[in-house]
Amino acid sequence: MAEIEGNAVVANALKEQGVQFVFGIVGYPVIELGMAIQTAGIHYIGMRNEQAACYAAQAIGYLTGTPGVCLVVSGPGLIHAFGGMANAQVNCWPLLVIGGSVAQDHEGIGGFQECVPTQVELARPYCKYAARPASIHLIPMHVEKAMRLCKYGRPGVSYLDFPGNLLTTLVPEEAIPKQYLCPEPPLIYPNPRSIEEASRILLGAQRPLVILGKGAAYSKAEREVRELIENTNLPFLATPMGKGVVSDNSTKCVASARSHALQKADVILLVGARLNWILHFGRPPRFDPEVKIIQIDINAEEMHNSIKSAVAIQSDIKPAVAQITDILKAKRFNFGSDKQWWKELKLKCDGNKKGVEALAMDTTPL
Amino acid sequence: MAEIEGNAVVANALKEQGVQFVFGIVGYPVIELGMAIQTAGIHYIGMRNEQAACYAAQAIGYLTGTPGVCLVVSGPGLIHAFGGMANAQVNCWPLLVIGGSVAQDHEGIGGFQECVPTQVELARPYCKYAARPASIHLIPMHVEKAMRLCKYGRPGVSYLDFPGNLLTTLVPEEAIPKQYLCPEPPLIYPNPRSIEEASRILLGAQRPLVILGKGAAYSKAEREVRELIENTNLPFLATPMGKGVVSDNSTKCVASARSHALQKADVILLVGARLNWILHFGRPPRFDPEVKIIQIDINAEEMHNSIKSAVAIQSDIKPAVAQITDILKAKRFNFGSDKQWWKELKLKCDGNKKGVEALAMDTTPL
Amino acid sequence: MAEIEGNAVVANALKEQGVQFVFGIVGYPVIELGMAIQTAGIHYIGMRNEQAACYAAQAIGYLTGTPGVCLVVSGPGLIHAFGGMANAQVNCWPLLVIGGSVAQDHEGIGGFQECVPTQVELARPYCKYAARPASIHLIPMHVEKAMRLCKYGRPGVSYLDFPGNLLTTLVPEEAIPKQYLCPEPPLIYPNPRSIEEASRILLGAQRPLVILGKGAAYSKAEREVRELIENTNLPFLATPMGKGVVSDNSTKCVASARSHALQKADVILLVGARLNWILHFGRPPRFDPEVKIIQIDINAEEMHNSIKSAVAIQSDIKPAVAQITDILKAKRFNFGSDKQWWKELKLKCDGNKKGVEALAMDTTPL
Amino acid sequence: MAEIEGNAVVANALKEQGVQFVFGIVGYPVIELGMAIQTAGIHYIGMRNEQAACYAAQAIGYLTGTPGVCLVVSGPGLIHAFGGMANAQVNCWPLLVIGGSVAQDHEGIGGFQECVPTQVELARPYCKYAARPASIHLIPMHVEKAMRLCKYGRPGVSYLDFPGNLLTTLVPEEAIPKQYLCPEPPLIYPNPRSIEEASRILLGAQRPLVILGKGAAYSKAEREVRELIENTNLPFLATPMGKGVVSDNSTKCVASARSHALQKADVILLVGARLNWILHFGRPPRFDPEVKIIQIDINAEEMHNSIKSAVAIQSDIKPAVAQITDILKAKRFNFGSDKQWWKELKLKCDGNKKGVEALAMDTTPL
Repeated sequence: MAEIEGNAVVANALKEQGVQFVFGIVGYPVIELGMAIQTAGIHYIGMRNEQAACYAAQAIGYLTGTPGVCLVVSGPGLIHAFGGMANAQVNCWPLLVIGGSVAQDHEGIGGFQECVPTQVELARPYCKYAARPASIHLIPMHVEKAMRLCKYGRPGVSYLDFPGNLLTTLVPEEAIPKQYLCPEPPLIYPNPRSIEEASRILLGAQRPLVILGKGAAYSKAEREVRELIENTNLPFLATPMGKGVVSDNSTKCVASARSHALQKADVILLVGARLNWILHFGRPPRFDPEVKIIQIDINAEEMHNSIKSAVAIQSDIKPAVAQITDILKAKRFNFGSDKQWWKELKLKCDGNKKGVEALAMDTTPL
Repeated sequence: MAEIEGNAVVANALKEQGVQFVFGIVGYPVIELGMAIQTAGIHYIGMRNEQAACYAAQAIGYLTGTPGVCLVVSGPGLIHAFGGMANAQVNCWPLLVIGGSVAQDHEGIGGFQECVPTQVELARPYCKYAARPASIHLIPMHVEKAMRLCKYGRPGVSYLDFPGNLLTTLVPEEAIPKQYLCPEPPLIYPNPRSIEEASRILLGAQRPLVILGKGAAYSKAEREVRELIENTNLPFLATPMGKGVVSDNSTKCVASARSHALQKADVILLVGARLNWILHFGRPPRFDPEVKIIQIDINAEEMHNSIKSAVAIQSDIKPAVAQITDILKAKRFNFGSDKQWWKELKLKCDGNKKGVEALAMDTTPL
Repeated sequence: MAEIEGNAVVANALKEQGVQFVFGIVGYPVIELGMAIQTAGIHYIGMRNEQAACYAAQAIGYLTGTPGVCLVVSGPGLIHAFGGMANAQVNCWPLLVIGGSVAQDHEGIGGFQECVPTQVELARPYCKYAARPASIHLIPMHVEKAMRLCKYGRPGVSYLDFPGNLLTTLVPEEAIPKQYLCPEPPLIYPNPRSIEEASRILLGAQRPLVILGKGAAYSKAEREVRELIENTNLPFLATPMGKGVVSDNSTKCVASARSHALQKADVILLVGARLNWILHFGRPPRFDPEVKIIQIDINAEEMHNSIKSAVAIQSDIKPAVAQITDILKAKRFNFGSDKQWWKELKLKCDGNKKGVEALAMDTTPL
Repeated sequence: MAEIEGNAVVANALKEQGVQFVFGIVGYPVIELGMAIQTAGIHYIGMRNEQAACYAAQAIGYLTGTPGVCLVVSGPGLIHAFGGMANAQVNCWPLLVIGGSVAQDHEGIGGFQECVPTQVELARPYCKYAARPASIHLIPMHVEKAMRLCKYGRPGVSYLDFPGNLLTTLVPEEAIPKQYLCPEPPLIYPNPRSIEEASRILLGAQRPLVILGKGAAYSKAEREVRELIENTNLPFLATPMGKGVVSDNSTKCVASARSHALQKADVILLVGARLNWILHFGRPPRFDPEVKIIQIDINAEEMHNSIKSAVAIQSDIKPAVAQITDILKAKRFNFGSDKQWWKELKLKCDGNKKGVEALAMDTTPL
């Protein structure tokens, strides 16, 4: 009867849950875990500092929707990853961090790199889910749950803690229960009445603006958003992480008139972006105090933050944008380039572009 | 130029955000706040122990959707409320707790009932939102946000902390900014493909069961759920907090055959209920290992917990149930009382009822 | 080969570490633990609310130096004890709290009264030591450490968490290692140069005052403190918890002139008392801004808090007071009742006593 | 009437409390604070990563007894310092970390690098003291307390949090209260009866060993420890951080026979060292199960950890070692090099040295 070790149970569970990349630094007690991960057919990228490892791992999750894993040793190994974990959590990027920890019979007596409070406690402020599986049999369940929680709803960070003695526990292979593969996250659809209200407001806008945020990128709503922009000729801006959903080279992009567009817009369709410091909190003097915000966000708790939205649409980006586009198309809405608002924006764009070009051509030594 | 005190600013903000009931115990430093709350026209109910005050306040929020407030003094006053806060948070009931705290110039030197860690830190594990407004001007914003966060998404608890010196600060009335009224929470709708898949599974069920949880009650989906039950003749059960959505006296209620119904059902429509300990985690031997669960829940992170659902529908209860009903009606689906499953359930119900009646009539002294 | 259960291992460990009294409320999963505790010969007092149980248990610890135990169930059971734990921790009273918690295979899936964050995390802010023994073999070590940590240095609170499955684990009796009995706490002695400096200041005082705090009571320094007071005729006051170290009936007690004594003293010997809110932070206008404080405290971190002491003596109360007494006796120091300061204090005392007596004799109906 | 800004108040307070070195990375909102620190005459060392800055700053504190300061920006700036803070806290090294944080009117609305939980909460697990001064007037008090707490008792870490708006607040200079300079930490002396007992055990030892830890180094007990070793001819070892208290070149140093010395010693005088993983927890098979440990430590809570000491002496290292030396000298104790134990140790040392030399001379390519 073949036996299996904790290390292999963790590695297999990661593989089964679709993990493709692990970034980390190995050392006691996760050296053998690093090997087991490679044996399981997962790419392992050795780094020099857990800080960088954790920032790297989260980029994979944002780009692909499948969380990368950051693997760290106990104590400082984990703590050095907290910067990356905090970043992923705030950025709403899916990430799974796995930390080795002191053998449990060394707890309370000054074990090697023992943490008090425990590593699970220290990690929790940066996590949606943080746990230590209580036995080898529970590892597949916790790995699936960690993957599920970091991907579902608003994405974020999961942390799993593995004491050294758990990783080296041996049990018969058949003692490890099979765990289901974490299904794709559920999609939520918008309230139709909110979609109608949003469309009504857009139809009446004099100085409309679309702002694309990272939520639009993460939900892979490129097709829907581009169709909206192309069909309506609405001017748009992107936040730094929202770039690429529609090309900055689009004639509808008013990035070169950003300040003016934000300040003068009377209706803003906010697509997966937050009215936080990056968007000046949506407040005067950077925004018109009378601006009507149509907010589309996956997260209820993000609604009406800082200022009150005219319409708050909790939904995945794709169906919400598609439904608005459908209504606007049915109304044959097109915000023509001959509108006063477009003329203003174009003028600002041209002026700003010329200024930048002049600076770029200025060869005067500094 | 009239001046206004912190106490009145807090009381007015609560009133403006729709608070109708405050349960609490006053003492230093919230005596005057208790008075200001009554002056503002809010019902104040004086209690004898913060523990009970907090359990009482949360019931109001669950029953009405408008959070009750629990008002406590510093130190032990707040800590005695943690039992209630934990309960509300786990139960997903909206609740706002307001605590007075030590004057800030007494922090660090052993102030009266000073807490280290601070009260905000101590309260945070039981909260969706916990904050101390940094100045009197920020009070209306934090009160609105606290109300909003405890109601939006999955409901829960907010805590606001008011140092004694903040409550007695005086400023000109016009220095206090107006804050918008927290709008009603957004409604989320189901993914139509999930609704179709759920309907397809229900149509093919041999031993279907509907389980009604507190989510159905909190979303006030009585009309939609009753229509589903009446139109389909599906047998149903309610969790303790899900009772009343459909009357236990309904002929469709199989509460008297609960164990059998759970164990033998091949398809379960789970309506705002969790597969936690109350429902035996949805696992064998209390459930059929092949049971197909159709899960409707407002919270993505609740999906596939403990066992994998066949269909996971993240949605407000009302539209999801209504859409399933529409499809079943269109298919003229009716799960006739002559079905083998109904006969089994009725037999069990009758047997169990007779047993209970016999016990009730047994006048043998114990 | 006889087997032993986790419950008995915990109970035996408590008994071996000298626990005599347990206050608690039993329920799942600590019913059998309550029985095992009684089987082990420990007094068990059943209470009606964990809040009261925890306040009761800590009084035993303060009065006897041997911690009482508070036994609670999971979830609300533990959280209801936090008020008492916070009080014991702030009061520097030794206390051990024992909580049952959810079986570990129910963690993460909504176990009965499961806490997220875990109970150890929730308890930690109120503790010097909080831990969950990882296996039955580690229980005696953690019980000893919990007892040791709550008694050593500045006393406080320990918490131990026992999942239901750990309490019902069975192992051969001889598999449980023997653990040493926690020795009596070490005693620390004062820096002789600080004692000399303190004595020099006392010898030169015009309006000296001794303040007795709970540290003097807890260290059982009655003999040393009474010898100091008797030999020197110094006026003294006690804080509420410092009462009884010297009788309030002593002619040296100036409790009836408290405000005047605090305000006018030029030298204060602070014996195991904190200059926190109870003593008005040692600051004007309740104290002379030029007052010289001689601070005796077991805890380094308590020194110079709020105001700077003239001499800070970190020591157990007994040797520090005895050494000062020895020096003052050698100098034949006696602060005669004919001193101006004594006359003032007596006059104030007499006036205040007369006022109180008049009030007491006033039979006018209210 | 001259005004002073928060930045200058912080810088002046640091200077007044004796801070000489600040390591950090500036950025919003601490750019001006970095300048103010230099204006105040404190050395500022600009680093490239807060991780390294924090490790550097703590080395200063350990070497000089005067804490270095680590200055960081908000959010990731602070979190990157947690590795260093955890290290300093576990190592018992004094360190003060100062972090800028988001302006308070941006709290709750997604301010730049805003942390939820707050920075004070995130930092607290790594700190003895963590606080945010509530107003500019309270800054000098909190700076003194932070310095005091990180130095007093067992040293560790303090964290102070300064919101951007607090740092730019302007008040009249005379509104800032003067704060006393934090006095040198109190010294604690040993219980004379424990010293006698320790001396009695040493006098009877057949295979004695002295182990020097970082506590001996931090307390600057070189003179006392060298006098002990010289007068008694006792063999000694040093932990990695305890090296240099007595030179490794001393003929009494048995570092080359470390394993044998630990395993065979019958009495160990443990001078400011912990029986943690570095010393194999003081347990068999690395130690004799009957070994008698004489433990000298400043911290009561360190006593009897892992194994029970024969004598636990809570004291500063200097007086405890000096008093033992005095007794041993009075008894004319000298553990002669002709003792069997010394012969064993010398034999091991010589053997191990030869082995190492042979390796060093081995020029075979690897």
